[in-house]
Amino acid sequence: MHDDRKRSGFKSRTRVEDARERLLAAADPHGRTERVALTRADGRTLAERVTAPNPVPGYDRAAMDGWAVRAADTFGASDRSPTVLRAAGDADVAVGPSDAARVHTGSALPDGADAVVMIEQTERVGDDVEVFDAVTEGENVGDAGEDVEAGQSLFEPGHALRPSDLGLLKSVGLDRVRAFEPPTVGVVPTGEELVQADPGPGEVIETNGLTVSALVSRWGGVPTYRNVVTDEFSALRAAVQRDLTKDVIVTTGGSSVGERDLLPEVIDELGEVLVHGVALKPGHPVALGVVEDTPVVSLPGYPVACIVNAVQFLRPLVKHVGGMDCPPLPRREVRLARKLSSEPGVRTFARVEVREEDGEQVAVPTRTSGSGILSSVALADGWVVVPESQEGIPAGERVEVEQWEWSA
Amino acid sequence: MHDDRKRSGFKSRTRVEDARERLLAAADPHGRTERVALTRADGRTLAERVTAPNPVPGYDRAAMDGWAVRAADTFGASDRSPTVLRAAGDADVAVGPSDAARVHTGSALPDGADAVVMIEQTERVGDDVEVFDAVTEGENVGDAGEDVEAGQSLFEPGHALRPSDLGLLKSVGLDRVRAFEPPTVGVVPTGEELVQADPGPGEVIETNGLTVSALVSRWGGVPTYRNVVTDEFSALRAAVQRDLTKDVIVTTGGSSVGERDLLPEVIDELGEVLVHGVALKPGHPVALGVVEDTPVVSLPGYPVACIVNAVQFLRPLVKHVGGMDCPPLPRREVRLARKLSSEPGVRTFARVEVREEDGEQVAVPTRTSGSGILSSVALADGWVVVPESQEGIPAGERVEVEQWEWSA
Repeated sequence: MHDDRKRSGFKSRTRVEDARERLLAAADPHGRTERVALTRADGRTLAERVTAPNPVPGYDRAAMDGWAVRAADTFGASDRSPTVLRAAGDADVAVGPSDAARVHTGSALPDGADAVVMIEQTERVGDDVEVFDAVTEGENVGDAGEDVEAGQSLFEPGHALRPSDLGLLKSVGLDRVRAFEPPTVGVVPTGEELVQADPGPGEVIETNGLTVSALVSRWGGVPTYRNVVTDEFSALRAAVQRDLTKDVIVTTGGSSVGERDLLPEVIDELGEVLVHGVALKPGHPVALGVVEDTPVVSLPGYPVACIVNAVQFLRPLVKHVGGMDCPPLPRREVRLARKLSSEPGVRTFARVEVREEDGEQVAVPTRTSGSGILSSVALADGWVVVPESQEGIPAGERVEVEQWEWSA
Repeated sequence: MHDDRKRSGFKSRTRVEDARERLLAAADPHGRTERVALTRADGRTLAERVTAPNPVPGYDRAAMDGWAVRAADTFGASDRSPTVLRAAGDADVAVGPSDAARVHTGSALPDGADAVVMIEQTERVGDDVEVFDAVTEGENVGDAGEDVEAGQSLFEPGHALRPSDLGLLKSVGLDRVRAFEPPTVGVVPTGEELVQADPGPGEVIETNGLTVSALVSRWGGVPTYRNVVTDEFSALRAAVQRDLTKDVIVTTGGSSVGERDLLPEVIDELGEVLVHGVALKPGHPVALGVVEDTPVVSLPGYPVACIVNAVQFLRPLVKHVGGMDCPPLPRREVRLARKLSSEPGVRTFARVEVREEDGEQVAVPTRTSGSGILSSVALADGWVVVPESQEGIPAGERVEVEQWEWSA
């Protein structure tokens, strides 16, 4: 008796790290690259190591407003007994003995000069310049290559370009870089109960595909948000086959072990299931596989479970396939206001709100009564990860809140 | 004598908070809104408070796979003496006394039923269902509105939408939201030494405008990256006037007190200078003003100073004008590997690299020898903010590294 019991659980659950490792090992970076203008390159991923073709600055330059001089001419100058030099006009002329040429911060140092006297240490008197302090060779001069030397290595492949990087790349004389094309991702929501709007009894509005598509965009991928596919083997198989031209396929729903959970079987028939069931909560019924070299992430249909798994598996996969580095998520360390419970051996993602209590920022767990509660994640500020080795976290401990949806 | 000395410094420097406050007080949110489809709304800023038109779930639903029943029918059921109910077909039918209807997790609870017996606690025998355990009213049932109640307030104006928010908004029956239009920003690089490429002696490649434009985009604004304007009063005045149709004007270069630093004078002639000179380092020579209701941020030309000031003043201004919340930047707490020096009374932004040393993440100050060193910021992982009240930070202290360019 109780035949159904066997179907209700997973025999074993893979640890998060192992599952991720197996998935990434089975997926290759797509390797497609393109040349991108710096004005459009923010957030793009370098496909090449970049070294500086030119030094910055490209020439010795004045580091202060003042007069370019030969340092030796100023030796012995003081407030009481200024050295008098000849004002040699603008900075383009060469500076000879006893000459001084007016320079502004950043101007090229005129030929012949080897130091700059700050304007405050001088006074112009007719065609003369009185110098009230001595300078040494190189004083107030920025050397060519002081910021970046020619040939200096700046960035490695995989680096996601940031605004200041664009400035640096331009300053060394580049106007384009070779970047990886953004990886393409087929996003396939599944479930016979799903509708796009106006749900009747027993119907549910599709949200996972929308959320996952927006996440994929944030992570540097290009999502194609497909129509809902119903829970039929042939329809699901066709949906997976349609997106084998993509770099990654992600499905939502139908990833568990119930009679309507057909995705693992579909992946198994078309390719290989690498992992089915992961020791994490909420969201253990995730399936990871590969079909004809295209990695497939089959996320559970419960919205919170779907998001937790997307961050754990889809994010590193999109980064890996797109040749991108996968930086850690931003974290905030705060005190835990109430205890968190968790099961040992299972990595638990506890949604929290960060609030001020008694003048201190604290993490307050949100309702955790189910992986279906989308509001528990959308209205949270992040989650606290309770590692497998721990059984809960007592109130009052300092914890790190992972801000998995932070934006600038 | 020493007439020039007076020109070389600022009489006083405004504290960062005061400067920011004065700037924001002089700028109004633009208030323009538009309706945006949820599929295009990630990162957009809500212009309205959103309340849920419909509850989620919209109906009572099964929280488990199993059989929907009247709880009273199961009282007394046990492994040894199961209760026998009549299998009533699919979930659409009403459940009468001694009926049981097969339901899946998430299905609407059939009329008449008030509980769900888990599949593991049952066995199907022909047209009968044996129930091995009693359930109480409401057991394994998710109530309508359990996740979100109708009329529940979800988000306030100013909230920047995140992927999971889109799912939540869709789940309550919305397909569009009213969002603020992105604020428009004229980005005007200035400086007679600036060229776009191939610098000759004394020429410098323009980088600040490129970097600031990319930052503005990241912060939710729409930049217009203008051509370089030379250091002439009439040219600078025309450049400011041209962009009075924008929500914000930002210039780079010419913001100090030298003879070529004309921006403060231009702002003064056309409107009002609110702040000139701020007690921060690197980058004190920033000017903040307003011309015909358009706020103007005049950033210094040194690349690092430019970026530091952009993050301190332009970011909150763009957010304020665009009606957006301005969340704190992500931070990472690590140990400081070497001491940082700073001047008391001045807020110092010390660029650091975060590295692993002896198995621990530590912050290592990058070269700090000047505000012109773009590589010190582009190659850094963030900066440590040394507050005005402190004179440096000793090695070994725990510090927060602000990751001002973090991306997902």
